[in-house]
Amino acid sequence: MKRPIAEILSQGDELTTGEITDTNASWLSRELTSLGLDVARHTTVGDRLEDLVGLLREIAERADLCISTGGLGPTCDDLTAEAAAQAFGCPLELDRDALAQVRAYFTRLGRNMPAINEKQALLPRGSERLDNPWGTAPGFALQAGRCRFVFMPGVPGEMKAMFSRWVEPDLRRRFRTVPARLMVLSTVGVGESTLQERLDRIALPPGVKLGFRAGGPENQVKLLFPANFPEAALDDCVTRVAEAIGDAVFAIGGSEERGRDLASVVGRELAVRRSSLYVVETLSGGRMASRCAGEPWFGGALVIPDSAALYRYLGIQPSGYPSPAITAVVHRLREYGSEYALAQIAHFERGRLNDETETVEIHFVLVTPDGVWQQTRTIGGDIERKQITATALSFDSLRRYFLRLSGLRT
Amino acid sequence: MKRPIAEILSQGDELTTGEITDTNASWLSRELTSLGLDVARHTTVGDRLEDLVGLLREIAERADLCISTGGLGPTCDDLTAEAAAQAFGCPLELDRDALAQVRAYFTRLGRNMPAINEKQALLPRGSERLDNPWGTAPGFALQAGRCRFVFMPGVPGEMKAMFSRWVEPDLRRRFRTVPARLMVLSTVGVGESTLQERLDRIALPPGVKLGFRAGGPENQVKLLFPANFPEAALDDCVTRVAEAIGDAVFAIGGSEERGRDLASVVGRELAVRRSSLYVVETLSGGRMASRCAGEPWFGGALVIPDSAALYRYLGIQPSGYPSPAITAVVHRLREYGSEYALAQIAHFERGRLNDETETVEIHFVLVTPDGVWQQTRTIGGDIERKQITATALSFDSLRRYFLRLSGLRT
Repeated sequence: MKRPIAEILSQGDELTTGEITDTNASWLSRELTSLGLDVARHTTVGDRLEDLVGLLREIAERADLCISTGGLGPTCDDLTAEAAAQAFGCPLELDRDALAQVRAYFTRLGRNMPAINEKQALLPRGSERLDNPWGTAPGFALQAGRCRFVFMPGVPGEMKAMFSRWVEPDLRRRFRTVPARLMVLSTVGVGESTLQERLDRIALPPGVKLGFRAGGPENQVKLLFPANFPEAALDDCVTRVAEAIGDAVFAIGGSEERGRDLASVVGRELAVRRSSLYVVETLSGGRMASRCAGEPWFGGALVIPDSAALYRYLGIQPSGYPSPAITAVVHRLREYGSEYALAQIAHFERGRLNDETETVEIHFVLVTPDGVWQQTRTIGGDIERKQITATALSFDSLRRYFLRLSGLRT
Repeated sequence: MKRPIAEILSQGDELTTGEITDTNASWLSRELTSLGLDVARHTTVGDRLEDLVGLLREIAERADLCISTGGLGPTCDDLTAEAAAQAFGCPLELDRDALAQVRAYFTRLGRNMPAINEKQALLPRGSERLDNPWGTAPGFALQAGRCRFVFMPGVPGEMKAMFSRWVEPDLRRRFRTVPARLMVLSTVGVGESTLQERLDRIALPPGVKLGFRAGGPENQVKLLFPANFPEAALDDCVTRVAEAIGDAVFAIGGSEERGRDLASVVGRELAVRRSSLYVVETLSGGRMASRCAGEPWFGGALVIPDSAALYRYLGIQPSGYPSPAITAVVHRLREYGSEYALAQIAHFERGRLNDETETVEIHFVLVTPDGVWQQTRTIGGDIERKQITATALSFDSLRRYFLRLSGLRT
């Protein structure tokens, strides 16, 4: 049987004028690929009705599935429902349940629904409504010729929630594909070319495809196994790859691992111990706080912009750095209620952080129930790279601590 | 004269499988739009020769310009030159200068050119070579029917350098367009539908196109004026739109305003006063800290996960909330070195933040050199929406304070 052909359609002038980058298309492509569908094409068009109508008809002729995002808002430049109605001869009709849902959304926010939002409850006749409790615009799905069309709003949070809740289960039923099996090894602190070199020493079984997803200090190695690849051989291959990379591997799993980050691995350890973590950030610039916030194991964060401010906060003189700073930080951290506390002590001038030729020496101080642990690293790159690296290495110092603990136990 | 129609074509399996997000298309769209060209469509296809050939022929029929990126590498899955050759009947021929350039690139790296790179010097007969001193793959351009095709490699750094050096000057000569003029009004705290309703009352001059960019609490209203629209009429139109929206407008400007956020407006006021800002975040979950970090006016941030932790930090009892909490926070904020301090005092259980039916009452306490200002708001939505809204309203309370100050001055 031929594998079904999927296409992705993105709509909006903000995309064709380049105001925003289309991240929906790549997210949806990953999801569809992992379901075993071939994504043949992405197309983006602006807010012009005749372009949209023509394009929908084209796609209906060549694809088995089209996932469309955007153009379902309440304003005059939102034209998708109208375009689908014209392209496939199914006029818009008021969907009373959709209208009640849009109204209910505003009621939850304590507001009256503006009259123009009524437009969002107009759906092409015969289409299936896709509820959107996460926002105002319901989606809809319809069949046109050989092609199943799914229309969702362009707001990424709403689109992803709707896809996972309504669209994915439906696609699994509708297209009984056997997906290739993806295994993902998440690593930290080892660059893409070093990973490639370490893996060059291993002979992968025939048919297994090796890929990388480079993202700075956290990089993923991907192994794509053909459908029905024997389980034992798969396990063996993954184990050999993990051994070749070494203890930089912090998580191994299937396609669900693609979103896994170091913080979630550390968080699992903290959650098991019913413990919380307090952090003092300097170099990472608030990135740890915003990653931890909302997590049940987050104890709090102090974000300090530079070393001078840190010294003021600690009430110490910069002379004799770093030891007095570390002593003062440990003393302070002990005062907080969290069982674990991590501080970044680093000497830098904030105005020079973006200078790529400037490296920063950073001391990670980890206060745990069984002692104080320290580690020193040097971090380079522009300001964003320094912040991202400091964040990753901070979480990694905690991960390595828990790794040593479990090593002691076994 | 009709404005020329441009399209963007991106190639590569890594795009259609979603492994990477296509940032070339949005970058090129911004460049072409600012040159006065209308980008009608982006299309992305994978590494399949027949798809590419078909698509090139389609585009030749409907566009005046097509900028293509990707597929010019040395490996077997790089098919662009071959596809152009087949689509337009101009067989590949070895370009000796191109070959010398690819060789020279490797020589500069101190390496011999691998044999497979010779393929990169094969260009369609009659095409113009675009030199690429930044990498191995030269580009090329050709005319097919009404459409000018420009092919460049997909590596963003090489593509951008080639575009600026060779392509942009050529397009300026070739398409003598006068760009439309974009005016952007940035607003906060007013939803997209309310904006639309307020603007429905205004009659826009003929030819002026109204658009929206919705992003949660910060929304932008865009007015696209035809080329050569009279300056006085433009100013008048923008003023009337701004008045209709009211004091939710926090910035007005040209296309450079598209990236403007509230924090940068507040930061400008702080920078003018050579002052710094300290924040205590609860509901916004570290988002203020990571936005402020790196800014010269950032004084520091305390990120507290929930109200119970805030009370512990303040050393107070939750009874009598919020007044004792506010008094304690103000007292604490006075101790820090920053001239301005802002705290979010909110009563919530962290585990219920993601509950959309749960709203949070939040008190913004702003400590300034001339007094303490308070404001209370109710925030709803899921956890992400609550965090984003709390961040925007926090910065907005500072913006409104500075607005009142300047009102007093005038």
